[in-house]
This record gives sequence, structure tokens and C-alpha cells, in this order.
Amino acid sequence: MSVTPESPGCLAGIRVLDLTQFEAGTTCTEALAWMGADIAKVEPPRGEAGRTGFGDAYYFMMYNANKRSITVNLKSERGLALVKEMVKKADVFTENFAPGAVERLGLGYEVVSAINPKIIYAQVKGFGDGSPYEKGLSFDPIAQAAGGAMSITGELGGRPIKPGPTIGDTGTGMLLAFSIVSALLERGRTGKGRRLQVAMQDSVMHYSRGGFITQARTGKAAPRRPPANNSPHGIYPCKPEGPNDYVYLLTSRANPEHWPRLLKLVGREDLIGDTRLNDPDTRAQHHAEVDEIIASWTRQHTKQEAMAQLSGVGVPAGAVLDTQELVDEPSFYERGMLQTMVHGERKMAMPTWPVRFDGVPAEVKPAPLLGEHTAEVLADWLGLDAAAVAALRQDGVV
Amino acid sequence: MSVTPESPGCLAGIRVLDLTQFEAGTTCTEALAWMGADIAKVEPPRGEAGRTGFGDAYYFMMYNANKRSITVNLKSERGLALVKEMVKKADVFTENFAPGAVERLGLGYEVVSAINPKIIYAQVKGFGDGSPYEKGLSFDPIAQAAGGAMSITGELGGRPIKPGPTIGDTGTGMLLAFSIVSALLERGRTGKGRRLQVAMQDSVMHYSRGGFITQARTGKAAPRRPPANNSPHGIYPCKPEGPNDYVYLLTSRANPEHWPRLLKLVGREDLIGDTRLNDPDTRAQHHAEVDEIIASWTRQHTKQEAMAQLSGVGVPAGAVLDTQELVDEPSFYERGMLQTMVHGERKMAMPTWPVRFDGVPAEVKPAPLLGEHTAEVLADWLGLDAAAVAALRQDGVV
Repeated sequence: MSVTPESPGCLAGIRVLDLTQFEAGTTCTEALAWMGADIAKVEPPRGEAGRTGFGDAYYFMMYNANKRSITVNLKSERGLALVKEMVKKADVFTENFAPGAVERLGLGYEVVSAINPKIIYAQVKGFGDGSPYEKGLSFDPIAQAAGGAMSITGELGGRPIKPGPTIGDTGTGMLLAFSIVSALLERGRTGKGRRLQVAMQDSVMHYSRGGFITQARTGKAAPRRPPANNSPHGIYPCKPEGPNDYVYLLTSRANPEHWPRLLKLVGREDLIGDTRLNDPDTRAQHHAEVDEIIASWTRQHTKQEAMAQLSGVGVPAGAVLDTQELVDEPSFYERGMLQTMVHGERKMAMPTWPVRFDGVPAEVKPAPLLGEHTAEVLADWLGLDAAAVAALRQDGVV
Repeated sequence: MSVTPESPGCLAGIRVLDLTQFEAGTTCTEALAWMGADIAKVEPPRGEAGRTGFGDAYYFMMYNANKRSITVNLKSERGLALVKEMVKKADVFTENFAPGAVERLGLGYEVVSAINPKIIYAQVKGFGDGSPYEKGLSFDPIAQAAGGAMSITGELGGRPIKPGPTIGDTGTGMLLAFSIVSALLERGRTGKGRRLQVAMQDSVMHYSRGGFITQARTGKAAPRRPPANNSPHGIYPCKPEGPNDYVYLLTSRANPEHWPRLLKLVGREDLIGDTRLNDPDTRAQHHAEVDEIIASWTRQHTKQEAMAQLSGVGVPAGAVLDTQELVDEPSFYERGMLQTMVHGERKMAMPTWPVRFDGVPAEVKPAPLLGEHTAEVLADWLGLDAAAVAALRQDGVV
């Protein structure tokens, strides 16, 4: 790698008491971890559901990098008391249990904020307080259905499709992470804690706002794809025409140079100045003809060649890259955007935090083994010595 | 509305010099605006591309709420000098021009950070520094193609599909906004500025990490959909079987209660305890049979009825709601999650910032008219009086 990755360190000294599980909550605290916060991931002695529920460790590894794990039996009185001691030392408390569960555990907002009024108490639920579905259970695809994302994804005339990216989960986690850091910044001025609540359905609507623009414009439900007022715009087949052998390209209505650049590249200078095709509005009417002009060129190239050539002449273009092609691309490792995480016997090519600070990528440290840092965290946060931790272990509290 | 919306105010007093356009940059500064930052959106006298490029104002309205607009002719020497004066007063500088453009304008990182070493200088590009495509132009779908999102979206056996949510644009904006606020928090301690750079391709990979889990697990490109190891899991048709009349439901492998709850609801208690179907692994082998059991029930209900009943008995379920259904749902207005933005003669139902602070939704103030706040911002930021602004106007500088 050309640059040694390191944590930007922006959140050094910030302590996060992390009761999250699966992805919507864990990606939030992982974002805080990328920035250098101290994440104490409190897990039940059997491990949180995202650690145990998938048969192997990859899911857990992906969403829990750079955290520390401590096991606590929250069903025991002493375990609960221990976590309440940690509440006193924490800047942030996070959870994404099913509705009502954190209150049943005895760690609801009223309890926690009474112990530490300066805490930022942050929760993820499937649906908002006051929603007809506020008690409803949610997972990523449920939120993508109910938040509008599926209705605007798919082939024209086809069924609604769930977007592959986990907008309901990671998408929610990012909005909450931003809100937590904003609240921390404010707390520096006010000294006061805040209660943050986010619903996965609402978060999906945030990422789907393009559909709400179409809704406002047309007064009708946004379709799977917007009307073709722009041509060319979409995927075109490339050699050797396998399942992902396509290049996405478009000419922007805001930049009239894209079209003649494209014509030159595909060897159709003869059409530069053709009045039917020069103007974006009339060109859109001839989109079938335009598509055939483009496709007859793209079919002669691999998607990587097509992207390089299009991009090289200033036409916006992207090959449809799959995960194999992405993990095989050396420049991601050179840039630190992909790093290898080692976790027990597992290794994984892991996309890192995408934002570079002063040109340096953030460092990946492993997701923790279950309870790997129980003694260390209890020493750091509460000053417990080895004998005290051993006694807690002996009694099944940690 | 049951609660009066108001800005959480976390970023009150933070000044953002905002040169962003379209969506990836504007959603970033809009997030800062939701938190109460003072966004001075610097536009060329003709308006930024997202204001002028779509024939009406809805696109601009959606991504520029709660900002102030100032027009400056950056091609004039005095206009550039004016913005450099604003740099001195700014906490954050943001831009998402094409590669090289901000440097050509005379506002590259070296220039701006020399004027104000405490500034957080934040940039969005399509591809990262060091990528083979670092000079390439990008728009949301280009990033979704090149970042893996399209390869994991679609029907099994079908073409790659672009997810409707704008993960390349809004998704990128959210990661940068979080990073900016983290850098601001750090600056309170260090007094130093930072340079932040994010690539849309890399951001899309962040939201597509589920695919990289599958890649690690199987050693092969993640397919459009993961193998069906979970049943039931997917969309089921509902009355009256229109294009979006489906309910998404699943039974989690982590919660064995979902399946018997579902059987009871659909009137198939007779199958509770059926050994073929009780165990998630063997149930997955019989997914066609399971799907028919579920679909024969969902077809008798609308998606809203199905969601209410499933959700009511503790089975995770979401109706595939479209934008019309979402803007027609009264609870979103009562909760402040949808608010109406008025902008000139236009009105729009706008999804607001999804995270609630102390139970209060963030207030929507209109996206600005072009140059609406030129005099006001120049007075607030630089202390210019009306006569000075009038002179600048006269000379075509603002």
C-alpha cells in the first residue's frame, strides 16, 4: 500500500456503550469506531445475534471492525448493575433491539438518562413512534419495502425488486452516526445529553427521495424507472456478454459535449450535427436508434475497456463490476480502500471507511472475538482489577 | 402535527461555504443544515446545475432545504476575492465539481487551506485518487454500476438493475457529512483543519458490503440474490394485484417463533410441528410449498391488511409502499416525517431528517431562491452594508 492506513482519531476519547446487534445498529457504532471512538460492545454470553446467526463469522466481521467485545449477563442483577456503572462513564448509548426490549432489560431511556444526564441515548427501530406499525418487527428488506425503495427498483413492467445494498440497515446506521456526532458536538457547548430515535422505514425514504421528486412532479407514484427523457442512459451489453457484462453510460442534459464526444468515440462522427439527435429532447424520442448505435460499439469491447475509453474521452461511464472483480482490483488495496481483516482463522477482503482524511485511509482492526476485551474494558472503564473480573466470571456475571 | 418541528440546533454557529451541486454534495450540506449549520450556498449567477438542469424546481428543493443562496461570479477576479474572504470565516468548505474544476476556479485545497488552516475542506469525486478512473466523470448510476450495487440487484437470471435509491449520491453525502462533523469535533481539541475526500464508487461499496460477505463466504461474485437458505423470505402478491401490491415477509433463522406465529395467522396450525417445515434448513428445501401456503393467504388481503396482521402477531412484514401511498399516509405528517415545502409557487411533500432529537422532528425551511440571501450572507459573514452589496451587484460580481 502506498500510504499506511491509520485511524483519523477524530473521536478519540469518546466512549460508546454499544448494545447493538445485526447491522442497522452495528454499522452506526462501527462508523464511530472508524473515527477512533472506544466502542465497548456488550454481548450476552452466547454472543449477539449477528455473531451467532449466520453459521460463520463474515457477517459479524464486516459490521464490527475496530470494536472491543465484553460479555455481560444482563439477565443477572449484578450484570445489569455492572452495565449501569458503565453508563456513568459513557458518552453514547446505542441499541437496536425489538420494540420494548431495552426497557424490559431495565436500560430504557428514563433509567439511563437518570444515571447519566449527559449521555447521548440513540435507538434504531423499524417504524417510528406514532406510526401505525410502531410495534412492528423489521429487518432490512422490510424497511426497503415499507420505505418506498422496492417500488422504485426493477424493470419497467416487472415486479418490485429489493435493492441489493442494505439501505434499511447500513443506510439507517449512517444517519444515526451523523446525528450522534452532531449531538456530541453540541454537548461540548451545552453539557446536555439528547435522546435520538430513528426508524428504518423513515431512513429508507431519505435515500429514496428521488422518487418523491417524481411524485411531486407528476402527482403519481414514481415508477420503477423515470420516463426516458435522456438518451443514451442505461446499461449496454459488453463482451463476452456474461451476467454482469454491461457498461452503464449516460449523456447529461446539463452538458451538451457528452454526445459529440460519444459519437466520435464510437466512430459515428457522421451523426454530429444531425438535428434529430443533437437536441436532448428529440434524441430521447429516437432512443431505440441511439441505443443500437451505442450497443453495436459496446458489444465489441469488454466492460473494462468500454469504461476506460468512455471515461477517457469525458463521457460518464461505469462498468457493472461484481464483488469478485472489485476484490481482484489491485488499486483498491494500494489505496487502502480494501484491507484484509483477520479474525480467528478467517480472512476477508473488507471495504474500509470511504472518506480519506488528509489522504490517509482508515485502518482496519479486527472485529473482536466474543468477550475478547471483557477484562480490558472493565479495567479501562471501571478500574476493576484482574481479581475482581475473575470473581465476576466465576459467578457467571461476565 | 402533534409536535412542533424545530431544528435540533446541534451545529448552530457552524459556517459552511457550500460550492456543491446536483445531489452527492448538496445532500451532505443539507444534512448539516438540518442540524442547524449556516449553509452559504454559493451559486453562479445562472444558478447551480441542480437548480437549472431539470425543468422545474423539485429536484433543487429536495436537496437544498434550510440553506441560504448567494450568487457570486467566480470567473471575475472580485468574485473570487469575495469568496476567499468568506473562506476566512468558514468552518467547512465543500465541493463536488468534476475532477480538476475547483483547482481551475482557484479554490483548490492548497489555496483554501493556506487562507484558513482551520478549515475542514471536503470533496466528493466519482473515483478515488489513485483509481485507474480518477479523472472519470460520475453520476449516481455510474457509481452504482462501478461500486457493485447493480451486480447484486435484480431477478435471478435477469439483467443487473440500478437500485432506485440514490446510494451513489445521497449515500455518499451522508458518509461525508458524518466525517465532516467528526472532524469538527476533533478541531475543538486540536484547532487544526482537515482535508476530506470521498469517492462515490467507494461509498457505493460501503452500502453494498452484504455482497462482500457473500464473496468472502463463497469465493465467488455475489449473485443478484443470496441463495434461498431462508423460507419464507420475499414478496408475496396481495389484492388487487397491481404493480406494487405485494407484502415482503420473512421468518428469521434467529427467532424460531416467527414460523408458528405465521402458520397460526394463515390458518395452518395443522403444520405446526411438521418436521419438514419446522427446521429452517429443511423448510428452505421446501420453499415452493411454503411460498404457496403464504401466497394463498396474502392474495386474500390488501398489502396494508396483510402487513397490519403479520406485524400484529409478531412476524416481520412490510407492504411494498409506493410514493403515492407514502405521501397519502397521515401519520407521517402527524409525526413531522413529511412536511410540505413551499418554494415560490411550488409545494412538495418532503421527507424530513429521519432522526428525532428528544422526540422532536427537524423543521423544513424552504430551499432558497437563486441569490435570495446574497445581501444577508454578505452582511452576516463579511459585515458588508447595503451600499457595498449594491456596488457588487452593479458590477456583476454578485
